[in-house]
Amino acid sequence: MGPAPRVLELFYDVLSPYSWLGFEVLCRYQHLWNIKLQLRPALIAGIMKDSGNHPPSMVPRKGQYMRKEIPLLKQFFQVPIHFPKDFYDVVLKKGSTNAMRFLTAVSMEQPEMLEKVSRELWMRIWSQDEDITESQSILSAAEKAGMSAQQAQRFLEKIPTEQVKNKLREITDAACKYGAFGLPTTVAHVDGNTHILFGSDRMELLAHLLGEKWMGPVPPTPNARL
Amino acid sequence: MGPAPRVLELFYDVLSPYSWLGFEVLCRYQHLWNIKLQLRPALIAGIMKDSGNHPPSMVPRKGQYMRKEIPLLKQFFQVPIHFPKDFYDVVLKKGSTNAMRFLTAVSMEQPEMLEKVSRELWMRIWSQDEDITESQSILSAAEKAGMSAQQAQRFLEKIPTEQVKNKLREITDAACKYGAFGLPTTVAHVDGNTHILFGSDRMELLAHLLGEKWMGPVPPTPNARL
Repeated sequence: MGPAPRVLELFYDVLSPYSWLGFEVLCRYQHLWNIKLQLRPALIAGIMKDSGNHPPSMVPRKGQYMRKEIPLLKQFFQVPIHFPKDFYDVVLKKGSTNAMRFLTAVSMEQPEMLEKVSRELWMRIWSQDEDITESQSILSAAEKAGMSAQQAQRFLEKIPTEQVKNKLREITDAACKYGAFGLPTTVAHVDGNTHILFGSDRMELLAHLLGEKWMGPVPPTPNARL
Repeated sequence: MGPAPRVLELFYDVLSPYSWLGFEVLCRYQHLWNIKLQLRPALIAGIMKDSGNHPPSMVPRKGQYMRKEIPLLKQFFQVPIHFPKDFYDVVLKKGSTNAMRFLTAVSMEQPEMLEKVSRELWMRIWSQDEDITESQSILSAAEKAGMSAQQAQRFLEKIPTEQVKNKLREITDAACKYGAFGLPTTVAHVDGNTHILFGSDRMELLAHLLGEKWMGPVPPTPNARL
Protein backbone atom coordinates (compact mmCIF):
# COMPACT_ATOMS: atom_id res chain seq x y z
CA MET A 1 0.00 0.00 0.00
CA GLY A 2 1.43 3.37 -1.03
CA PRO A 3 1.16 6.63 0.89
CA ALA A 4 -2.36 8.00 1.53
CA PRO A 5 -3.70 10.28 -1.22
CA ARG A 6 -3.50 14.00 -0.55
CA VAL A 7 -6.88 15.70 -0.28
CA LEU A 8 -7.59 18.49 -2.76
CA GLU A 9 -10.70 20.60 -2.29
CA LEU A 10 -11.82 22.35 -5.45
CA PHE A 11 -14.23 25.22 -4.79
CA TYR A 12 -16.06 26.17 -7.97
CA ASP A 13 -19.14 27.76 -9.47
CA VAL A 14 -20.47 26.90 -12.93
CA LEU A 15 -20.83 30.63 -13.55
CA SER A 16 -17.05 30.91 -13.66
CA PRO A 17 -15.33 29.88 -16.92
CA TYR A 18 -11.91 29.63 -15.30
CA SER A 19 -13.47 27.28 -12.72
CA TRP A 20 -14.38 24.99 -15.60
CA LEU A 21 -10.78 24.89 -16.81
CA GLY A 22 -9.45 24.14 -13.32
CA PHE A 23 -12.16 21.51 -12.82
CA GLU A 24 -11.32 19.65 -16.03
CA VAL A 25 -7.59 19.68 -15.30
CA LEU A 26 -8.09 18.24 -11.81
CA CYS A 27 -10.67 15.71 -13.03
CA ARG A 28 -8.03 14.49 -15.50
CA TYR A 29 -5.19 14.38 -12.98
CA GLN A 30 -7.24 12.65 -10.26
CA HIS A 31 -6.59 9.45 -12.20
CA LEU A 32 -2.85 10.15 -12.52
CA TRP A 33 -1.74 11.72 -9.25
CA ASN A 34 -1.98 10.35 -5.74
CA ILE A 35 -4.81 12.71 -4.79
CA LYS A 36 -8.36 12.56 -3.53
CA LEU A 37 -10.32 15.27 -5.31
CA GLN A 38 -13.22 16.72 -3.35
CA LEU A 39 -15.59 18.85 -5.41
CA ARG A 40 -17.00 21.77 -3.44
CA PRO A 41 -19.82 23.64 -5.20
CA ALA A 42 -19.79 27.23 -3.88
CA LEU A 43 -21.38 30.54 -4.80
CA ILE A 44 -19.00 32.95 -6.53
CA ALA A 45 -21.32 35.90 -5.86
CA GLY A 46 -21.06 35.20 -2.13
CA ILE A 47 -17.26 35.00 -2.24
CA MET A 48 -16.97 38.25 -4.22
CA LYS A 49 -19.23 40.04 -1.76
CA ASP A 50 -17.54 38.67 1.34
CA SER A 51 -14.03 39.50 0.08
CA GLY A 52 -14.86 42.89 -1.44
CA ASN A 53 -13.61 41.68 -4.81
CA HIS A 54 -15.24 42.42 -8.15
CA PRO A 55 -15.60 40.25 -11.28
CA PRO A 56 -12.70 40.89 -13.68
CA SER A 57 -15.16 42.03 -16.35
CA MET A 58 -15.88 45.15 -14.28
CA VAL A 59 -12.62 46.56 -15.67
CA PRO A 60 -13.53 46.87 -19.38
CA ARG A 61 -10.05 45.97 -20.61
CA LYS A 62 -10.06 42.82 -18.47
CA GLY A 63 -13.36 41.86 -20.07
CA GLN A 64 -11.90 42.42 -23.54
CA TYR A 65 -8.84 40.40 -22.58
CA MET A 66 -11.01 37.49 -21.39
CA ARG A 67 -12.86 37.45 -24.72
CA LYS A 68 -9.55 37.09 -26.55
CA GLU A 69 -8.01 34.67 -24.11
CA ILE A 70 -10.91 32.20 -23.75
CA PRO A 71 -10.61 30.95 -27.38
CA LEU A 72 -6.86 30.37 -26.86
CA LEU A 73 -7.51 28.55 -23.59
CA LYS A 74 -10.27 26.49 -25.21
CA GLN A 75 -7.73 25.07 -27.62
CA PHE A 76 -4.95 24.75 -25.08
CA PHE A 77 -7.05 23.08 -22.35
CA GLN A 78 -9.22 21.18 -24.83
CA VAL A 79 -12.40 22.29 -23.11
CA PRO A 80 -15.21 23.43 -25.48
CA ILE A 81 -15.57 26.79 -23.76
CA HIS A 82 -17.32 29.58 -25.64
CA PHE A 83 -18.31 33.08 -24.60
CA PRO A 84 -22.09 33.61 -24.21
CA LYS A 85 -23.49 36.29 -26.51
CA ASP A 86 -24.94 38.42 -23.73
CA PHE A 87 -22.35 38.07 -20.99
CA TYR A 88 -23.93 40.75 -18.84
CA ASP A 89 -27.36 39.13 -18.84
CA VAL A 90 -26.18 35.52 -18.56
CA VAL A 91 -23.39 35.86 -16.04
CA LEU A 92 -23.85 39.07 -14.11
CA LYS A 93 -27.66 39.29 -14.07
CA LYS A 94 -29.07 35.75 -14.13
CA GLY A 95 -26.37 34.14 -12.00
CA SER A 96 -26.12 30.55 -10.85
CA THR A 97 -27.92 30.29 -7.50
CA ASN A 98 -30.40 27.57 -8.49
CA ALA A 99 -27.82 25.58 -10.43
CA MET A 100 -25.39 25.66 -7.50
CA ARG A 101 -28.16 24.69 -5.06
CA PHE A 102 -28.99 21.76 -7.32
CA LEU A 103 -25.32 20.70 -7.29
CA THR A 104 -25.31 21.10 -3.52
CA ALA A 105 -28.27 18.72 -3.24
CA VAL A 106 -26.47 16.26 -5.51
CA SER A 107 -23.28 16.55 -3.42
CA MET A 108 -25.24 15.70 -0.27
CA GLU A 109 -26.90 12.56 -1.55
CA GLN A 110 -25.25 11.38 -4.73
CA PRO A 111 -21.73 12.86 -4.75
CA GLU A 112 -20.55 10.39 -7.37
CA MET A 113 -22.77 12.26 -9.87
CA LEU A 114 -21.34 15.69 -9.07
CA GLU A 115 -18.58 15.67 -11.69
CA LYS A 116 -20.88 14.79 -14.59
CA VAL A 117 -23.75 17.08 -13.62
CA SER A 118 -21.37 20.02 -13.07
CA ARG A 119 -19.84 19.43 -16.49
CA GLU A 120 -23.26 19.37 -18.19
CA LEU A 121 -24.22 22.66 -16.54
CA TRP A 122 -20.97 24.22 -17.80
CA MET A 123 -21.71 22.77 -21.23
CA ARG A 124 -24.99 24.68 -21.20
CA ILE A 125 -23.87 28.09 -19.95
CA TRP A 126 -20.25 28.23 -21.08
CA SER A 127 -20.33 26.21 -24.29
CA GLN A 128 -23.80 26.24 -25.84
CA ASP A 129 -25.01 29.58 -24.49
CA GLU A 130 -28.06 27.94 -22.92
CA ASP A 131 -29.95 28.85 -19.79
CA ILE A 132 -29.10 27.26 -16.42
CA THR A 133 -31.64 29.08 -14.25
CA GLU A 134 -34.95 27.40 -15.23
CA SER A 135 -36.00 24.07 -13.77
CA GLN A 136 -36.21 22.55 -17.22
CA SER A 137 -32.61 23.59 -18.00
CA ILE A 138 -31.26 22.03 -14.83
CA LEU A 139 -33.26 18.82 -15.36
CA SER A 140 -31.95 18.58 -18.89
CA ALA A 141 -28.33 18.90 -17.72
CA ALA A 142 -28.88 16.25 -15.03
CA GLU A 143 -30.41 13.84 -17.50
CA LYS A 144 -27.59 14.37 -19.98
CA ALA A 145 -25.23 13.52 -17.13
CA GLY A 146 -26.99 10.18 -16.81
CA MET A 147 -29.35 10.88 -13.91
CA SER A 148 -32.89 9.50 -14.08
CA ALA A 149 -35.64 12.07 -14.63
CA GLN A 150 -37.19 11.00 -11.36
CA GLN A 151 -34.03 11.45 -9.36
CA ALA A 152 -33.30 14.82 -11.01
CA GLN A 153 -36.82 15.96 -10.12
CA ARG A 154 -36.23 14.93 -6.50
CA PHE A 155 -33.05 17.02 -6.30
CA LEU A 156 -34.82 19.93 -7.96
CA GLU A 157 -37.45 19.90 -5.24
CA LYS A 158 -34.72 20.23 -2.64
CA ILE A 159 -33.46 23.54 -4.08
CA PRO A 160 -35.68 25.74 -1.86
CA THR A 161 -35.06 23.76 1.33
CA GLU A 162 -33.18 25.31 4.23
CA GLN A 163 -30.97 22.23 4.39
CA VAL A 164 -29.62 22.80 0.87
CA LYS A 165 -29.45 26.60 1.15
CA ASN A 166 -27.51 26.28 4.41
CA LYS A 167 -25.14 23.72 2.98
CA LEU A 168 -24.27 25.96 0.01
CA ARG A 169 -23.74 28.88 2.41
CA GLU A 170 -21.56 26.64 4.59
CA ILE A 171 -19.31 25.59 1.68
CA THR A 172 -19.09 29.19 0.42
CA ASP A 173 -18.14 30.30 3.95
CA ALA A 174 -15.53 27.55 4.14
CA ALA A 175 -13.91 28.91 0.96
CA CYS A 176 -13.94 32.41 2.45
CA LYS A 177 -12.35 31.15 5.66
CA TYR A 178 -9.52 29.64 3.62
CA GLY A 179 -9.05 33.13 2.14
CA ALA A 180 -10.84 32.82 -1.22
CA PHE A 181 -11.57 36.01 -3.17
CA GLY A 182 -12.70 34.31 -6.38
CA LEU A 183 -13.09 30.90 -8.01
CA PRO A 184 -11.70 28.39 -8.77
CA THR A 185 -9.91 28.08 -5.45
CA THR A 186 -8.01 24.87 -4.78
CA VAL A 187 -7.11 23.95 -1.22
CA ALA A 188 -4.37 21.34 -1.08
CA HIS A 189 -3.70 19.42 2.12
CA VAL A 190 -0.10 18.25 1.81
CA ASP A 191 2.03 16.81 4.63
CA GLY A 192 0.08 18.60 7.33
CA ASN A 193 0.19 21.92 5.46
CA THR A 194 -2.74 23.68 3.82
CA HIS A 195 -2.03 25.56 0.59
CA ILE A 196 -4.59 27.76 -1.06
CA LEU A 197 -4.20 28.28 -4.81
CA PHE A 198 -6.28 30.69 -6.83
CA GLY A 199 -7.15 30.25 -10.48
CA SER A 200 -6.93 27.65 -13.21
CA ASP A 201 -3.30 28.62 -13.83
CA ARG A 202 -1.79 27.28 -10.61
CA MET A 203 -2.01 23.59 -11.48
CA GLU A 204 1.66 23.30 -12.40
CA LEU A 205 2.53 24.90 -9.04
CA LEU A 206 0.15 22.40 -7.42
CA ALA A 207 2.02 19.53 -9.12
CA HIS A 208 5.25 20.98 -7.69
CA LEU A 209 3.75 21.12 -4.18
CA LEU A 210 2.49 17.55 -4.49
CA GLY A 211 5.76 16.27 -5.96
CA GLU A 212 3.75 14.98 -8.92
CA LYS A 213 4.55 15.28 -12.62
CA TRP A 214 2.96 18.10 -14.62
CA MET A 215 2.12 17.03 -18.15
CA GLY A 216 0.22 20.10 -19.29
CA PRO A 217 -3.53 20.69 -19.09
CA VAL A 218 -4.23 17.62 -21.25
CA PRO A 219 -2.23 14.74 -19.76
CA PRO A 220 -2.26 11.37 -21.51
CA THR A 221 -5.21 9.28 -20.35
CA PRO A 222 -4.29 6.27 -18.21
CA ASN A 223 -5.26 2.80 -19.44
CA ALA A 224 -6.41 4.23 -22.75
CA ARG A 225 -8.42 1.52 -24.48
CA LEU A 226 -7.05 0.48 -27.83
CA MET B 1 18.87 29.25 -42.05
CA GLY B 2 15.77 28.42 -40.01
CA PRO B 3 12.56 30.45 -39.77
CA ALA B 4 12.84 34.00 -38.45
CA PRO B 5 12.49 34.31 -34.67
CA ARG B 6 9.10 35.44 -33.38
CA VAL B 7 9.16 38.79 -31.61
CA LEU B 8 7.99 38.85 -27.99
CA GLU B 9 7.53 42.19 -26.27
CA LEU B 10 7.64 41.97 -22.49
CA PHE B 11 6.17 45.02 -20.78
CA TYR B 12 7.27 45.16 -17.16
CA ASP B 13 7.85 47.35 -14.15
CA VAL B 14 10.32 46.49 -11.37
CA LEU B 15 7.60 47.45 -8.88
CA SER B 16 5.68 44.32 -9.91
CA PRO B 17 6.82 41.01 -8.39
CA TYR B 18 4.92 38.94 -10.95
CA SER B 19 6.74 40.92 -13.67
CA TRP B 20 10.00 39.64 -12.23
CA LEU B 21 8.81 36.03 -12.49
CA GLY B 22 7.68 36.50 -16.10
CA PHE B 23 10.92 38.31 -16.93
CA GLU B 24 13.14 35.52 -15.59
CA VAL B 25 11.16 32.82 -17.39
CA LEU B 26 11.41 34.63 -20.73
CA CYS B 27 15.09 35.50 -20.18
CA ARG B 28 15.70 31.76 -19.69
CA TYR B 29 13.66 30.65 -22.71
CA GLN B 30 15.13 33.27 -25.05
CA HIS B 31 18.12 30.93 -25.34
CA LEU B 32 15.93 27.87 -25.98
CA TRP B 33 13.05 29.01 -28.17
CA ASN B 34 13.13 30.63 -31.58
CA ILE B 35 12.16 34.04 -30.22
CA LYS B 36 13.50 37.54 -30.10
CA LEU B 37 12.75 38.98 -26.66
CA GLN B 38 12.25 42.73 -26.53
CA LEU B 39 12.24 44.19 -23.04
CA ARG B 40 9.82 47.09 -22.66
CA PRO B 41 10.16 49.00 -19.38
CA ALA B 42 6.76 50.59 -18.65
CA LEU B 43 5.05 52.28 -15.71
CA ILE B 44 2.53 50.07 -13.93
CA ALA B 45 0.94 53.06 -12.21
CA GLY B 46 0.17 54.55 -15.63
CA ILE B 47 -1.36 51.31 -16.88
CA MET B 48 -3.52 50.91 -13.77
CA LYS B 49 -4.77 54.48 -14.08
CA ASP B 50 -5.45 54.28 -17.81
CA SER B 51 -7.33 50.97 -17.56
CA GLY B 52 -9.25 51.76 -14.36
CA ASN B 53 -7.70 48.72 -12.70
CA HIS B 54 -6.47 48.56 -9.11
CA PRO B 55 -3.48 46.74 -7.59
CA PRO B 56 -4.53 43.30 -6.30
CA SER B 57 -3.44 44.26 -2.80
CA MET B 58 -6.38 46.71 -2.63
CA VAL B 59 -8.58 43.67 -1.90
CA PRO B 60 -7.22 42.64 1.53
CA ARG B 61 -7.66 38.91 0.90
CA LYS B 62 -5.75 39.18 -2.40
CA GLY B 63 -2.93 40.86 -0.52
CA GLN B 64 -2.91 38.07 2.07
CA TYR B 65 -2.96 35.51 -0.73
CA MET B 66 0.05 37.15 -2.42
CA ARG B 67 2.01 36.98 0.82
CA LYS B 68 1.41 33.24 1.02
CA GLU B 69 1.90 32.57 -2.67
CA ILE B 70 5.13 34.50 -3.24
CA PRO B 71 7.24 32.11 -1.06
CA LEU B 72 5.83 29.14 -3.02
CA LEU B 73 6.53 30.85 -6.34
CA LYS B 74 10.04 31.78 -5.15
CA GLN B 75 10.85 28.11 -4.78
CA PHE B 76 8.99 27.01 -7.90
CA PHE B 77 10.44 29.70 -10.22
CA GLN B 78 13.82 29.74 -8.49
CA VAL B 79 13.78 33.52 -8.24
CA PRO B 80 14.91 34.93 -4.85
CA ILE B 81 11.75 36.97 -4.41
CA HIS B 82 10.86 38.17 -0.93
CA PHE B 83 8.08 40.42 0.32
CA PRO B 84 9.25 43.85 1.55
CA LYS B 85 8.46 44.54 5.18
CA ASP B 86 6.46 47.68 4.53
CA PHE B 87 4.64 46.83 1.31
CA TYR B 88 2.44 49.91 1.48
CA ASP B 89 5.35 52.32 1.78
CA VAL B 90 7.70 50.57 -0.64
CA VAL B 91 5.29 49.64 -3.41
CA LEU B 92 2.22 51.82 -3.17
CA LYS B 93 3.77 55.02 -1.83
CA LYS B 94 7.35 55.26 -3.10
CA GLY B 95 6.74 53.69 -6.49
CA SER B 96 9.20 53.15 -9.31
CA THR B 97 9.15 56.25 -11.52
CA ASN B 98 12.86 57.09 -11.26
CA ALA B 99 13.96 53.48 -11.59
CA MET B 100 11.81 52.98 -14.69
CA ARG B 101 13.08 56.24 -16.20
CA PHE B 102 16.62 55.03 -15.60
CA LEU B 103 15.81 51.74 -17.37
CA THR B 104 14.23 53.73 -20.19
CA ALA B 105 17.46 55.72 -20.63
CA VAL B 106 19.41 52.45 -20.66
CA SER B 107 17.02 50.95 -23.22
CA MET B 108 17.59 53.93 -25.53
CA GLU B 109 21.36 53.83 -25.52
CA GLN B 110 22.63 50.58 -24.13
CA PRO B 111 19.79 48.05 -24.53
CA GLU B 112 22.16 45.11 -24.08
CA MET B 113 22.45 46.17 -20.39
CA LEU B 114 18.70 46.27 -19.78
CA GLU B 115 18.31 42.68 -18.62
CA LYS B 116 21.05 42.87 -16.01
CA VAL B 117 20.16 46.32 -14.67
CA SER B 118 16.46 45.39 -14.41
CA ARG B 119 17.37 42.24 -12.47
CA GLU B 120 19.54 44.20 -10.03
CA LEU B 121 16.73 46.67 -9.38
CA TRP B 122 14.37 43.75 -8.65
CA MET B 123 17.04 42.26 -6.41
CA ARG B 124 16.97 45.47 -4.39
CA ILE B 125 13.22 46.06 -4.04
CA TRP B 126 11.81 42.53 -4.27
CA SER B 127 14.59 40.47 -2.69
CA GLN B 128 16.66 42.54 -0.29
CA ASP B 129 14.00 45.09 0.71
CA GLU B 130 16.25 47.97 -0.36
CA ASP B 131 15.33 51.35 -1.76
CA ILE B 132 15.13 51.95 -5.52
CA THR B 133 14.08 55.59 -5.50
CA GLU B 134 17.30 57.37 -4.46
CA SER B 135 20.07 58.13 -6.96
CA GLN B 136 22.56 56.17 -4.90
CA SER B 137 20.30 53.10 -4.95
CA ILE B 138 19.92 53.17 -8.71
CA LEU B 139 23.66 53.72 -9.23
CA SER B 140 24.41 50.80 -6.97
CA ALA B 141 22.10 48.49 -8.95
CA ALA B 142 23.66 49.62 -12.25
CA GLU B 143 27.17 49.01 -10.98
CA LYS B 144 26.24 45.57 -9.67
CA ALA B 145 24.92 44.85 -13.15
CA GLY B 146 28.40 45.61 -14.51
CA MET B 147 27.95 49.20 -15.68
CA SER B 148 30.76 51.67 -15.07
CA ALA B 149 30.09 54.33 -12.42
CA GLN B 150 30.62 56.99 -15.06
CA GLN B 151 28.11 55.50 -17.48
CA ALA B 152 25.55 54.94 -14.70
CA GLN B 153 25.92 58.57 -13.67
CA ARG B 154 25.33 59.65 -17.28
CA PHE B 155 22.07 57.68 -17.43
CA LEU B 156 21.02 59.04 -14.07
CA GLU B 157 21.37 62.57 -15.37
CA LYS B 158 18.97 61.71 -18.18
CA ILE B 159 16.13 60.82 -15.78
CA PRO B 160 14.62 64.31 -15.71
CA THR B 161 14.90 64.92 -19.48
CA GLU B 162 11.79 65.21 -21.63
CA GLN B 163 13.27 62.68 -24.03
CA VAL B 164 13.36 59.95 -21.39
CA LYS B 165 10.04 60.91 -19.77
CA ASN B 166 8.32 60.88 -23.16
CA LYS B 167 9.84 57.56 -24.11
CA LEU B 168 8.57 55.92 -20.91
CA ARG B 169 5.12 57.42 -21.54
CA GLU B 170 5.24 56.16 -25.11
CA ILE B 171 6.04 52.56 -24.07
CA THR B 172 3.39 52.67 -21.34
CA ASP B 173 0.87 53.97 -23.90
CA ALA B 174 1.88 51.20 -26.32
CA ALA B 175 1.07 48.61 -23.62
CA CYS B 176 -2.30 50.29 -23.04
CA LYS B 177 -3.05 50.26 -26.76
CA TYR B 178 -2.42 46.51 -26.83
CA GLY B 179 -5.04 46.28 -24.05
CA ALA B 180 -2.85 45.97 -20.94
CA PHE B 181 -4.50 46.40 -17.54
CA GLY B 182 -1.53 45.28 -15.46
CA LEU B 183 2.00 43.91 -15.73
CA PRO B 184 3.70 41.75 -16.85
CA THR B 185 2.03 41.85 -20.25
CA THR B 186 3.58 39.81 -23.03
CA VAL B 187 2.76 40.61 -26.62
CA ALA B 188 3.61 37.76 -28.97
CA HIS B 189 3.82 38.33 -32.69
CA VAL B 190 3.26 34.91 -34.25
CA ASP B 191 2.53 34.21 -37.92
CA GLY B 192 1.05 37.63 -38.53
CA ASN B 193 -1.13 37.46 -35.40
CA THR B 194 -0.69 39.48 -32.24
CA HIS B 195 -1.49 37.76 -28.95
CA ILE B 196 -1.60 39.60 -25.66
CA LEU B 197 -0.96 37.52 -22.56
CA PHE B 198 -1.34 38.83 -19.04
CA GLY B 199 0.63 37.60 -16.06
CA SER B 200 3.58 35.38 -15.26
CA ASP B 201 1.31 32.33 -15.48
CA ARG B 202 0.67 32.37 -19.22
CA MET B 203 4.10 31.16 -20.31
CA GLU B 204 2.97 27.59 -20.94
CA LEU B 205 0.14 28.96 -23.11
CA LEU B 206 2.76 31.09 -24.87
CA ALA B 207 4.83 27.97 -25.58
CA HIS B 208 1.68 26.40 -27.06
CA LEU B 209 1.09 29.44 -29.30
CA LEU B 210 4.73 29.40 -30.44
CA GLY B 211 4.77 25.64 -30.99
CA GLU B 212 7.73 25.48 -28.61
CA LYS B 213 8.32 23.05 -25.76
CA TRP B 214 7.40 24.06 -22.23
CA MET B 215 9.85 22.69 -19.67
CA GLY B 216 8.55 24.48 -16.58
CA PRO B 217 9.71 27.83 -15.20
CA VAL B 218 13.28 26.53 -14.78
CA PRO B 219 14.25 24.89 -18.08
CA PRO B 220 17.63 23.16 -18.37
CA THR B 221 20.31 25.64 -19.37
CA PRO B 222 21.64 25.16 -22.90
CA ASN B 223 25.34 24.46 -23.37
CA ALA B 224 25.79 24.16 -19.62
CA ARG B 225 29.52 24.39 -18.95
CA LEU B 226 30.97 21.42 -17.12
